[in-house]
Amino acid sequence: MSEQQTVSVNPAYGALTDRFRRASLIGDALGILDWDQATTMPEGSADGRAEQIATLRVMRHELLVDPSVADNLLAAQEAFQDNDPDSWDAANLREMWRSYAYAAAVPGDLVEAAARANAVCEIKWRSARAENDFASLVPALQTVIDCVGEIATARSEAFSLDPYDALLDEFEAGTRISLLEPLFGTLARDLPGFVEEVIAHQASGPAPVLPDGPFLVATQRALATQLMDALGFDFGAGRLDISHHPFCGGAAGDVRITTRYSEDDFTESLMGVLHETGHALYEAGLPELWRYQPVGKALGMAIHESQSLLIEMQVSRSRTFLEFAMPHMQAAFGSDSPAWDVENFYRLYTRVERGFIRVDADEVTYPLHVVLRYRLERALLSGNLPLKDLPGAWNDGMHDLLGITPPDDRLGCLQDVHWPSGAFGYFPTYTLGAMAAAQLYGAAQRDLPSLSEDISKGRLSPLIGWLRTHVHGQGSFRSAEDLLAAATGEPLNPQVFLDHLKHRYLGDA
Amino acid sequence: MSEQQTVSVNPAYGALTDRFRRASLIGDALGILDWDQATTMPEGSADGRAEQIATLRVMRHELLVDPSVADNLLAAQEAFQDNDPDSWDAANLREMWRSYAYAAAVPGDLVEAAARANAVCEIKWRSARAENDFASLVPALQTVIDCVGEIATARSEAFSLDPYDALLDEFEAGTRISLLEPLFGTLARDLPGFVEEVIAHQASGPAPVLPDGPFLVATQRALATQLMDALGFDFGAGRLDISHHPFCGGAAGDVRITTRYSEDDFTESLMGVLHETGHALYEAGLPELWRYQPVGKALGMAIHESQSLLIEMQVSRSRTFLEFAMPHMQAAFGSDSPAWDVENFYRLYTRVERGFIRVDADEVTYPLHVVLRYRLERALLSGNLPLKDLPGAWNDGMHDLLGITPPDDRLGCLQDVHWPSGAFGYFPTYTLGAMAAAQLYGAAQRDLPSLSEDISKGRLSPLIGWLRTHVHGQGSFRSAEDLLAAATGEPLNPQVFLDHLKHRYLGDA
Repeated sequence: MSEQQTVSVNPAYGALTDRFRRASLIGDALGILDWDQATTMPEGSADGRAEQIATLRVMRHELLVDPSVADNLLAAQEAFQDNDPDSWDAANLREMWRSYAYAAAVPGDLVEAAARANAVCEIKWRSARAENDFASLVPALQTVIDCVGEIATARSEAFSLDPYDALLDEFEAGTRISLLEPLFGTLARDLPGFVEEVIAHQASGPAPVLPDGPFLVATQRALATQLMDALGFDFGAGRLDISHHPFCGGAAGDVRITTRYSEDDFTESLMGVLHETGHALYEAGLPELWRYQPVGKALGMAIHESQSLLIEMQVSRSRTFLEFAMPHMQAAFGSDSPAWDVENFYRLYTRVERGFIRVDADEVTYPLHVVLRYRLERALLSGNLPLKDLPGAWNDGMHDLLGITPPDDRLGCLQDVHWPSGAFGYFPTYTLGAMAAAQLYGAAQRDLPSLSEDISKGRLSPLIGWLRTHVHGQGSFRSAEDLLAAATGEPLNPQVFLDHLKHRYLGDA
Repeated sequence: MSEQQTVSVNPAYGALTDRFRRASLIGDALGILDWDQATTMPEGSADGRAEQIATLRVMRHELLVDPSVADNLLAAQEAFQDNDPDSWDAANLREMWRSYAYAAAVPGDLVEAAARANAVCEIKWRSARAENDFASLVPALQTVIDCVGEIATARSEAFSLDPYDALLDEFEAGTRISLLEPLFGTLARDLPGFVEEVIAHQASGPAPVLPDGPFLVATQRALATQLMDALGFDFGAGRLDISHHPFCGGAAGDVRITTRYSEDDFTESLMGVLHETGHALYEAGLPELWRYQPVGKALGMAIHESQSLLIEMQVSRSRTFLEFAMPHMQAAFGSDSPAWDVENFYRLYTRVERGFIRVDADEVTYPLHVVLRYRLERALLSGNLPLKDLPGAWNDGMHDLLGITPPDDRLGCLQDVHWPSGAFGYFPTYTLGAMAAAQLYGAAQRDLPSLSEDISKGRLSPLIGWLRTHVHGQGSFRSAEDLLAAATGEPLNPQVFLDHLKHRYLGDA
C-alpha cells in the first residue's frame, strides 16, 4: 500500500488538501460538540449548542462549495493524468470530487428547507409516537418526503442516477437498487420460513435464563472496559460514557462511544458496548497519514455497520468469545447461579423471536424489518403509497414478512426516527452491513486458522490486525465493493450471511 | 437601559452583526473544546485537539480581518451619525471597531510567530521550573519577549499608544500606565508596613485550626454545589467539574467552572469554587439580547476578576457568609471538633502570611506580588533589565516589597506561566480587580442596607441582583471606567480597597 503524499507537487491539489483538512477539523470539532450535547451538556444549553453546531456546519459547507473548489479539482485532475491512477492521492482526489459533488448538487435553500423540515418533523414525531397518533405526523412528514424527493431529483440530475439510487449513494457510495433487489428478494423469500424453523428448534431445547440482578452500573462499566480493552480499544485516545441513545462519535484520534445501563439486566448494555466498540475500532484504525483528508475517512454506513456487527454478531455472541468473557462476568457479578454458564449465555445471546421493534430484533429477524422499510420508503417516494396509507401498508408488510401485526402504530410505523429526520435510503445499510460482516469474518477465519482458539483465550489482536489491514487501514482508498472483493475474494454474496445463520441457528440441531 | 436592536436599519451594520455573531459562536465552540481538553479529553488526543482549536481560531481571525469589515464599519459609522450615541447599537459598533482593530493591527505572520514562540516557551518553562534552571529558559523567553515587543510596537503605531499601554489595553480596555503608576505607588509605599502590622496583630490572637480530614471528594462537591446554588449558579445552564488548573469557561448559556479537590483539606477548593462562581455569575448575567454581539460580552480581565474577588474575598471570606455556610459545612463533615466554628474559619480564611508564591497569597500580600511583576515586565520590555538579570532583580524586589528572598528560582521568577506564554500586561488586572471588587461591594452595601443580614441568612439574591444591574447586565455597553463610576459614584479609588484591608485585618484590634 503506497501512502506517499504528493501534496506539494501540484498547487491546485495542495490548495484542495488545505481546504479539506480544514473542513475535516471542523467536522472533528462538531463531533466533540455532538458528543458533549448527548452526554454532558446541561439541558438548558440546548439552544446555544444548536446555534454553534449550525454555524460550524454552514462554514464547512461554504468551504466545500467555494467557487475555487471546482477550478482546483479540474486543474488537479489534469495534473494527475500522468500519475498512478491507483495512488492514494488519486483516490483522495476522487473522494474530494465526491464531497464537492454532494455539497454542490443541491441548492443551498433546499438544504436549509430540508434541515428545517426534518427538525420540525423530528419534534412532531416524538409526541406523535408518545400519543400513538400517526395522523398528527402526516403533514410534517409529507413536507419531509417532499424535500427528500426534491433532493433526490437534484442529485439524480447531477449524478445521472435514479433518484432513489442517489439517496442510497449518500450513505454508502455505489449502493444501487440493482444490488438490493436480488439481495432483499432472496431474504424475503427465504428468511420467513427459516425464522419459523429456528423458533421451533429453539423451543425444543432449554430456555435461556437471565441472571438475577441488580447489577451495579460501576461494575457493568468495569466489565465493559475489560472487554473493550481485550478488543484493543485505546482508552488513551477514546472514552466510554453514558447517553440516552448509544453511539460512536468524537473526533479523529479521540473516539468516544456511549451506552446506557439497566441495573436489572447487564446483558443488553454489554452487547451494545461491544457493538459500538466495533465502530470505534474502525475509526481508530483509519490511516493516520491521511487523517484529515477525504481518502482517510471511513467508507459509508454499510461498511461501518459491518464493523460493529462483525464484533457484536460474529465475534461477541459466539460461544468462543463467551468462553473468554464468562470468567470476567463471573468475577464481576458472582457465579452462584446456574445462569452463569457459557451455554446459557450463548442461548441468551442467540435467542430468536418475532417482535415489532427493529432495534430489539435479533440477527435473524432483523433483515425482515429492513426489507419492509426498504419497500415502503421506495413506495412513499415514488408516490405509489400515499402517506396516509402507510400504517396499513406497514401492518400488512409485517404480517407478510414476520407473521405478526402491530397492535398500534407506536409498535408499527411510528417506531423509527429515520424518516421523520429525513433519512431515506439509510435502512438498507443495516442489512448490507450484516452481510458484509459475515463475509469479512468468513475471510478472516480462512486467513487466521487459529482464530477461534485465539478468541476463546481473549487474544483478539490477530483479528483486529486483520481488520486493520483489510478494512480499517484502507480508509476510503477503495470503494466498498472493491474492498470487499479484495478482502474476501468475491463481491457481496448474501449466501455467506445465510450460511452463517443456518450454521449458528440450526447447525447444532 | 435601552436594548432595542436596530440591526435591520443599516445593511452594513446588519452584515457586521451577522459576521460577529458567527465569530462569537466559533468562540463558544472553542470554549467547549477548551473545557473538554482540560476536564475530559483522553491525553492521547492532545495533538488532534490542538489542530481543531488552531483551525477554529484561524477561521475566527479571518472573519474579523476580511476586507469587507473595514468598509462596513465605515459605512455603519456614517449611517449611525444621526443615531443616539448612547444606544446599545452604537456601543456595539464601538466594540466591533475594537475587535477589528485588534485583529488587524498585527500582521498575520507576527501573530503566528508569536503563537509558536509562546507554545515553545511554555513547554520549555515546564521543564525549566521543574529543574529550577532559569538559564535554560532564557533563549525561548527572549524570543517571546521580542515578539511581544513587536506586537506592542505594531499596536502602538495603530492605536497611538505607548507600547506597554497597548499591551495593558488588550486585557482591560482603557488601562494605562498613567492609571497604574499612582495606584501601585500607593500600594508599594503603604502595604509592606501594613503587612507587618497585620502579622503581628494576628500573632497576638489565637491561631486558626484546620479541621481534620479526610474529606471525601463527593461530599466536598455536594457542599460546593449547595453554596453555588445559594449564590444563584444555574446548574441547568452550567456545570462544576474537575481540572488541574481551576477555571471558568464553556460557552454563552453554558457556563462551566472547575476545581480540584484535596481529601486532606477542603477549605482551599471550596474557596476556589466560590471564586470561579463569581466569574460564572458574570458570564451568566450578561445581556441575553446581545449574547452573540461584541457589546454583549464581558469587559476585560480586571472587571472579570472584580467579580470573582467580590464573591470570594468580599463575600465568602466574611464572617457573615461563614455564619450561613457553617451549618452546611458541619452537616457535610460533622462538627465534633472545636475547629468547626465561625470565628476559627474566619481566622483561617483571613490569615496573612508572607510567601513566595503568588497563587497561594492572601489578599493583603497579593498586590505586592503584582507590583513586583508590573515593574519587572516593564523593565524587561523596555530593555532596561536584561533577561539574564531577571532572577536577581526578582529576588531584590521580593525583598524590598515582602521582606523575603526566594531560596531558588522555582519559588521566584520561574513560578508563573504568564510571561512564557506571552501574557505581558496581564498581571496588573489582578490588583485592579481586587480594588474594583472592594469599591463595588462598598457601593452594594450602601444600596442594600440589609446586605449583611441577608448574607448571614444565605439570601444572596439581592446582592446578585445588584451585580446583575450594575455590572453583569451591562455587558460591554460602558467602559470599565464608566461602569465603575456609574455603579459606585467615583472612578477607581485605591483607598476603598485599603480601607477594606484595614477594617478586616486590623479593625477588630
